[in-house]
Amino acid sequence: MKILVVGLGALGTVYSCLLSLSGHEVTGLSRAASIERIKEKGVKVSGIWGDHSVRLSNVVANVSELRQQTFDMIIVTVKSFVTEEIAREIAPLVGDKTFVFLLQNGYGNFEAAAKSITEEKLLLGRVIFGAETLAPGESKVTVIADDVIIGSPKNLINSEVLEEFAEIFRKAHIPTKASLEIMKYIWGKIIYNSALNSLGSIFEVSYGQLAQEPVTRDLMNKIIREIFDLLRARNISMFWPDAETYLADFYEKLIPPTSAHHASMLQDIQNGRRTEIKALNGAVVKLAHESRLSVPVNEVIVAMVKAKESFSLRD
Amino acid sequence: MKILVVGLGALGTVYSCLLSLSGHEVTGLSRAASIERIKEKGVKVSGIWGDHSVRLSNVVANVSELRQQTFDMIIVTVKSFVTEEIAREIAPLVGDKTFVFLLQNGYGNFEAAAKSITEEKLLLGRVIFGAETLAPGESKVTVIADDVIIGSPKNLINSEVLEEFAEIFRKAHIPTKASLEIMKYIWGKIIYNSALNSLGSIFEVSYGQLAQEPVTRDLMNKIIREIFDLLRARNISMFWPDAETYLADFYEKLIPPTSAHHASMLQDIQNGRRTEIKALNGAVVKLAHESRLSVPVNEVIVAMVKAKESFSLRD
Repeated sequence: MKILVVGLGALGTVYSCLLSLSGHEVTGLSRAASIERIKEKGVKVSGIWGDHSVRLSNVVANVSELRQQTFDMIIVTVKSFVTEEIAREIAPLVGDKTFVFLLQNGYGNFEAAAKSITEEKLLLGRVIFGAETLAPGESKVTVIADDVIIGSPKNLINSEVLEEFAEIFRKAHIPTKASLEIMKYIWGKIIYNSALNSLGSIFEVSYGQLAQEPVTRDLMNKIIREIFDLLRARNISMFWPDAETYLADFYEKLIPPTSAHHASMLQDIQNGRRTEIKALNGAVVKLAHESRLSVPVNEVIVAMVKAKESFSLRD
Repeated sequence: MKILVVGLGALGTVYSCLLSLSGHEVTGLSRAASIERIKEKGVKVSGIWGDHSVRLSNVVANVSELRQQTFDMIIVTVKSFVTEEIAREIAPLVGDKTFVFLLQNGYGNFEAAAKSITEEKLLLGRVIFGAETLAPGESKVTVIADDVIIGSPKNLINSEVLEEFAEIFRKAHIPTKASLEIMKYIWGKIIYNSALNSLGSIFEVSYGQLAQEPVTRDLMNKIIREIFDLLRARNISMFWPDAETYLADFYEKLIPPTSAHHASMLQDIQNGRRTEIKALNGAVVKLAHESRLSVPVNEVIVAMVKAKESFSLRD
């Protein structure tokens, strides 16, 4: 297959490397600053899935360098706040056979991409393995919480196609399942991150510490209850019947394996980068306003993370 | 006059030193750990009001050492969260002629003290000069925002008595005025601190930075509007007709002279001490609940400061 991986950060490096080694013709679209190194040294993956390295078929810094090419798969791994812009740029590359995989965090990537690319071509992926960047084009896979799930949010792509793609990823050694309920998985991850990633960024403590401290536990309960109220108001069904059932799972099953983890948004803040708060609690607030629902705790959390981000960017 | 100063922290040191030099017989009630040093070296004041030092008539670590004594004035300068306990301890020292001055931060000191001491004996003071502790019994006066205001919250003490006390403080070189509207001054300071001291502790930035950053400015506006809603619901009148009038003063007059200031609660947190959040936004939340009013932003702020305090105490 002809594959374009958009963004060669931690996740894009893993996908481009493993798909390439699996026999596909992979092009990488990377930031200009990293291009030379990646062209010279290729892409490398280490960690849980073993050590691998490969030279990509092509690495470019700009979509304009790819004109006249069509791809079977375009895998988008950039930060959620540039999805709309990137989708507009890659739209001309989307041909009849092309499918676009949005493997990003938070809510709103499908909606943002759909402004330029027809919904029948768009898949979402819920990725909850963790990879960190060691150097441009070098990633380490540090934790695998569950299989990647792929699907079409409105089920506009038939199951056989989904299954074929899942099989392609599995053959590249990335455990992946197709699902007709992708949004349930996406929301599950949003809820988890809206509590832990946000408060972890504000307090600079691990997920386990947030769960142990009664005051932050209470804040997380409130954040999560507000989100469940929102989902109910919008008739979005989940794997959990209500917030309390989710909370039991949250504290007993979801947090314990990641209790030593620190928020990725905190790393963004500490490195002077923008966070994805807009796609997490920010999306909750936006959808709540549309539904004329009040989510005051999420609203303050968004302001807190944004403020911390601003103060850090100014430093 | 026979005066007892309860607490020889930054503020208690200033009062005990200057009242003593003004000719009064001053006893200090101090933490046991500081007693020896203060007995040996006396109390010292430096900074804006000049350099002064004096040996107090008596320094004790325990109220029980003061049995059989009566004082004309008892000046309480301890943290607001121990007011109730301290008032219970000093109640036996309050005689017919005694007046008790609560010069502490936040809301609730009068109510807490009134559980053990009759309201006719209690005065509140709004202190907005700043003093910092250099060593036990050594204070530096760093900033004077306005005169100290003293008064009886329910105006149970007649004006001549108030004026006499104000004169005593003035003669000790502490600019002081008596007022029949002390609660307006106290609330003015609570509002200011509930916005600046709390957010300054969470973000570890100066008051000026909080006012400059649009996200924190918006949060402060919300905190302050909620407090004004509460005051209106409880028929508490202020010097400002509404929140918007206050906010204009807040940004144009109140913050500029203190823009370089950092939150005292942040210093508490960094030094592993408890903060006075319960007497600031915490009191707002408590009163709001009593009035069945919703103050969600203040509620989250309280949780944030408490969480930060807890994580710091655990370190």
